[in-house]
Amino acid sequence: MDTLVRVDMDRLEAKLEPVPDGWQRLGGRALVARFCLDEIPPTCDPLGRSNKLIFCPGLLGGTNASSSHRISVGGKSPLTGTVKESNGGGTPGQKLARLGLKAIIVQGKPRQPGLWVLHVSQQGARLDPADDLALLPATPAAERLRTRYGAKVAISLIGPAGERKLFASGVLHTDKEGVPWRISARGGMGAVMASKGLKAIVYDDAGTSGVPLADKQLFAAAAQRYHKLLFASPLSGKAYPEYGTAGILGAMNDLGALPTRNFSTGRFELADRINGETLRELILERGGVGNPSHACMPGCTIRSSNVVPDHKGECLVSPLEYETLGMVGANCGIGDLDQIAAINRACNEMGVDTIDVGGALAIAMEAGVIAWGDGERCRQVVERIASGDLLGRLIGSGGVMTAKVLGVERIPAVKGQIMSAYDPRAVKGLGVTYATSPQGADHTCGTTARRQMNHHSAEGQVEASRAVQVNVTIYDNTGLCMFAAPGVGEERQVICDLLKGRYGWELTPEDLLAQARQTILDEREFNRRAGFSEAHDKLPDWFREEENPASGTVWDIPDAELQLAHRF
Amino acid sequence: MDTLVRVDMDRLEAKLEPVPDGWQRLGGRALVARFCLDEIPPTCDPLGRSNKLIFCPGLLGGTNASSSHRISVGGKSPLTGTVKESNGGGTPGQKLARLGLKAIIVQGKPRQPGLWVLHVSQQGARLDPADDLALLPATPAAERLRTRYGAKVAISLIGPAGERKLFASGVLHTDKEGVPWRISARGGMGAVMASKGLKAIVYDDAGTSGVPLADKQLFAAAAQRYHKLLFASPLSGKAYPEYGTAGILGAMNDLGALPTRNFSTGRFELADRINGETLRELILERGGVGNPSHACMPGCTIRSSNVVPDHKGECLVSPLEYETLGMVGANCGIGDLDQIAAINRACNEMGVDTIDVGGALAIAMEAGVIAWGDGERCRQVVERIASGDLLGRLIGSGGVMTAKVLGVERIPAVKGQIMSAYDPRAVKGLGVTYATSPQGADHTCGTTARRQMNHHSAEGQVEASRAVQVNVTIYDNTGLCMFAAPGVGEERQVICDLLKGRYGWELTPEDLLAQARQTILDEREFNRRAGFSEAHDKLPDWFREEENPASGTVWDIPDAELQLAHRF
Repeated sequence: MDTLVRVDMDRLEAKLEPVPDGWQRLGGRALVARFCLDEIPPTCDPLGRSNKLIFCPGLLGGTNASSSHRISVGGKSPLTGTVKESNGGGTPGQKLARLGLKAIIVQGKPRQPGLWVLHVSQQGARLDPADDLALLPATPAAERLRTRYGAKVAISLIGPAGERKLFASGVLHTDKEGVPWRISARGGMGAVMASKGLKAIVYDDAGTSGVPLADKQLFAAAAQRYHKLLFASPLSGKAYPEYGTAGILGAMNDLGALPTRNFSTGRFELADRINGETLRELILERGGVGNPSHACMPGCTIRSSNVVPDHKGECLVSPLEYETLGMVGANCGIGDLDQIAAINRACNEMGVDTIDVGGALAIAMEAGVIAWGDGERCRQVVERIASGDLLGRLIGSGGVMTAKVLGVERIPAVKGQIMSAYDPRAVKGLGVTYATSPQGADHTCGTTARRQMNHHSAEGQVEASRAVQVNVTIYDNTGLCMFAAPGVGEERQVICDLLKGRYGWELTPEDLLAQARQTILDEREFNRRAGFSEAHDKLPDWFREEENPASGTVWDIPDAELQLAHRF
Repeated sequence: MDTLVRVDMDRLEAKLEPVPDGWQRLGGRALVARFCLDEIPPTCDPLGRSNKLIFCPGLLGGTNASSSHRISVGGKSPLTGTVKESNGGGTPGQKLARLGLKAIIVQGKPRQPGLWVLHVSQQGARLDPADDLALLPATPAAERLRTRYGAKVAISLIGPAGERKLFASGVLHTDKEGVPWRISARGGMGAVMASKGLKAIVYDDAGTSGVPLADKQLFAAAAQRYHKLLFASPLSGKAYPEYGTAGILGAMNDLGALPTRNFSTGRFELADRINGETLRELILERGGVGNPSHACMPGCTIRSSNVVPDHKGECLVSPLEYETLGMVGANCGIGDLDQIAAINRACNEMGVDTIDVGGALAIAMEAGVIAWGDGERCRQVVERIASGDLLGRLIGSGGVMTAKVLGVERIPAVKGQIMSAYDPRAVKGLGVTYATSPQGADHTCGTTARRQMNHHSAEGQVEASRAVQVNVTIYDNTGLCMFAAPGVGEERQVICDLLKGRYGWELTPEDLLAQARQTILDEREFNRRAGFSEAHDKLPDWFREEENPASGTVWDIPDAELQLAHRF
C-alpha cells in the first residue's frame, strides 16, 4: 500500500508513484481529507481543471474482516462546495487493496472532449478511449466493460447523469455479482469524474493473492473477535440481515421522523406498505433472484443489502434501502414498493443519488410540476436524464437547484445537499449532524437515530452528535461499513488489533478517536479555506418556524450551540 | 425625511414610524447597508420570513438636481447570498422623497398565500389586496394600477418572474411617462418582494410640493454649478445624450472586451450592426415615438435613456442599453437590433435582469439547447416565464443556475451573479470590481471601462478599481445617477454644497469619500456574518486558463492582490 496511481487527464497518462510522506497511515475518509488539503486549491471550480478526484479503500480494505472493503470517492464537491468523501460498497475497494494500491488520483482535464476508461491491474495502469460508452446507463456500460476486460473485473463508473454533469450524480460500483448499483451517491462526484473525461475505472486483480498481513495470527484472532461482536449485536446480527436498513422505517414513522411530502410531516399514512417487514415479505413471497439478506462485498456478515424481485422473480432493483423508501417513497407520497423500486432502478441506471433526487421530486410535487404520489411519472422523469430532457436534468441536479428554479421556499438542505430520510425536528441529534458536518446534510456523517434517547428534546443532542460523528469517522477511515459500529460499540481495541495484524502498528482506541477528530478538523480546515464559516453550519430557518405535526416539535437548538459539536 | 413606512406582512399592516437613530444622514446604498446590518439576520434564508426589503431614495432624491431620484432596493439577495443594493431609475425615488419618506421597509410574510399592493400617499400607507394582478406582465399590471389609483402615481412592481421567485427577477419602476421598464435588475430582489406577497408599491405624491431645502439659495447655486459640470463633460454633455450607454459598444469591441458567445471571445463580427451609432440612426430613421435621448426621470439633463420604435414608429422597447446589447446581443451571437429589442421588451414585461438572462441564454446556447444567434427563440423562451415553462424558469433563474443544470462549466460569474458586458480579461480593473464587490459581479459597483489606461495590463488595476468603487458609492448614497460621476469628477465639493443646501449639513469631499468607504465596509461586514470570506473574492479559474482571443489576454491578477481593493 505504498503505491498510488496518478492519472493526468491533461496528458492522458496514468503512472504509479510512491505514496507521499504523511499519507501512509491514512485511509478512506482521513486520506481524502489530507489529500484535499495537500493537493486541491480550496477555492477552485469543482468541475474545473484544478479540482482532483481520489478513489481509495480504507486501511482494512482487502482483508477478510467483514464489511471492510468500502471505497471512498473524494474531492471538492460541486453540490456543496465543500470537501467530500462519498462512501460506497461493492468490490472496487477490495480490488484496489489487493492490487497494493493506496489510491487512484485523477487530475487535470482532457484538452479535447472524449471519454476514457482507466484500467488498473498488476501490469500497471493505462487509459483506453471509451467514446462508445457515452451516455450508456450503468448496466449496459458495465456489461460492455466486462466483455472488453473480463468477467471478473470490478468497475467504478458514471451513468448519463454524471456525463451530463448533474450535481446529484454519483459514482457507481459493481457488487460481488457484478451489478453496478452500489453508489458513492452524495455530493455530485459523478459530475467531477465526468469533468475529467473518465467514464469508468476497471480493476483487474488477477494474479493477486490477498493483502499482506504483518501478523497473521493476531489478525485472525482479532477478526474472530470482531465477527463475534457483529453476530452478537441485535442490529448487525439480526435486524440488518433480516430487514436491511428498511427495518428502521416503522420506528421512524412512529417517532414522527419519516419525511413525508417534502418534510411537511413526519408520519406517512401508507408507511405499513413500504416498511421493512412488508419489504421482506414481498421479497420472500416472490422468490426468484429475490434475497432479503444480500452481501454487497465478499465476506460481509452483516448483509444489510437486498435484491428485490419483480413478479416474475427477476431482479427489479438491488439494494432497496431505507433512505430511498423514505425519500422517494414517503417524502413523495408514494406508498407502493414496486413503484419505489422502479424509480430506484432508474436512479441507479442514470447514476444519481436517490436521496437528493427523492428530495427534488418531492419539491417538484410541492411546485405542482408532478402530482403527489405519481411514481410512474417520477420514474419517467429520472429515466429521461439520459436523453437530456430538461425536467430530468433539473431533478438530477438535486433538490436545492430544483427548488430554486421552481420557486419552492421549503428546502430541506444544508450546504446545498438534501437531508436524508430523517426529519431533524424529530431526530434532533441528526439535525446537529446535518448542520455541522463538513460535508453538508448527510446521515452517514453521524446518525443518532438508533440511539436510546429522547429524540424530540433539544437536550444532549450536540453531545450525542459529536460522539457519533467521531465514531463513524473511525469506520470511514478503516473502510469498515458503518453498520459494524453498533456491534463494535466501545470495543474499539478490536479495530486496533486488526490494524496491528495488518500493518504491525501499535494503536490504542484513543489513537483511533484522535485520528477521527483530526479527520473532521482537516475537513473543516479545507472548508474554511474554501470560504465556509460557522455561518454555514445551520439548518434552514423554516425548520424553526414550521412545526412537524407528527412529532409536535420544531427545530430549537440554538445555532451558537451547534458549534460545540466539533469542539474536541 | 425623518419618517419611514414599515410594512408588516405577517399582520398585513403598514405603519409610519420615526427613522432610527444613526440612519438620519444615510441614504441609498449607505442606508441599505446599515439597514441590513441592523435588521436582517445575516444567515437568514433570503426568501424566508426573516429577510427584509427596503426601498429608499438617496440623500438628494426629490430635489431638482439632475438625475437625483435613483431608488435603491435592498436586502439579502437570493442570487448572491450577499447584501444587495439594486439601483433603479424612474420616478419612485422622487415621489418617496416628496412624500417625506426616508424608506419603506417590508418584513415578515403573509400567513396565507396572496398578493397585495402597498399604497403610500400623504394620507399614510395601507395594503390593498391585489390577487387579480397575479402573473400580469409589467405593462398590463401598471395600467390596471393606474386605473385603480390614478394616472399620476409612480409604481414599483414585480412581473411574473418575480412572482415565480426566479433569482434573476428584479423590481420594475415606472419612468416619467409611466412606462414600467426601469428596473432594479440585479440580485433577484423581485423574488424577495414576491416572497413577501407584494406585487407593487404605488406612490401617490398628490398635494406635495417638493422637498424642503435648508438653504434655497445655496442649493440653487450648487445645482447650477453641478449642471454646468454635467453639460461640460464630453460624456454627460454629449455622448450619453446622443448615443446613450450604447455609445461604448464600438470601443469595447475594439478593446476585445465585448463578451461574445458566452465570453468565448471579446469581439463580435456583427458589432457594427448593434453599436450606438447604428442604434441612433435606427431610432431617428424610424421616428414615431422614437427618441435617442430620453430622460427616465424629471429634470435629468443626461438623458442616457432612449425609446426604440418599431417599423410603425410605435414603442418597441425603452431603454435599450449597452449591457443588453452586449449580453443579449453579442454574447448570444445576435446581431439584430430588432431581435435584441424584442428580447429586452420580453425581459422587461416578465421583470428579469437582461444581464443575468443574457448570460443564461448564451449558456443555454453553449449547451446546445438554443441555437447560437436564434433571437426569436430567445424571446419566446423569456416570454414563457409567465406560463411557467421550465426552460423559461431556468433562464429566469440566471446564468449560474442555467449552467449548473445544463452542465456548462464556463460560467462568467462571481458570487452567483453573471458579469456585465465587459470581459474581465480585457478590462481588468472591472475584473477587480467583479471579484471584490460585496454584491457579486456588477459593473455598477465600479467600472474602469471609461478610464484612460491600458485595460489589458494587470498594472494599477486594483488601485483603479478601488477608486471607482469608492467614487460610485458616493452617487449611490446620494441618489445621483452614476452617469453624473464623469462630469463631477474630483469637484465633489458641489455635492457637499447640494447636501448643505438640502439639509444644512457641513460636509467635506473627504466626508463623502469616508462615508462611501464605510458603506463598502458595512456591506463586507454583513457578508462576513452571512458566511463570506476572502475566498469568495475571485474570478472563476477558467478566466486564467482560457485566453480571450480578441484581447490576447488572460486574467492574471493574483487573488491575494485583489484584497487590497478594500484596504482603505
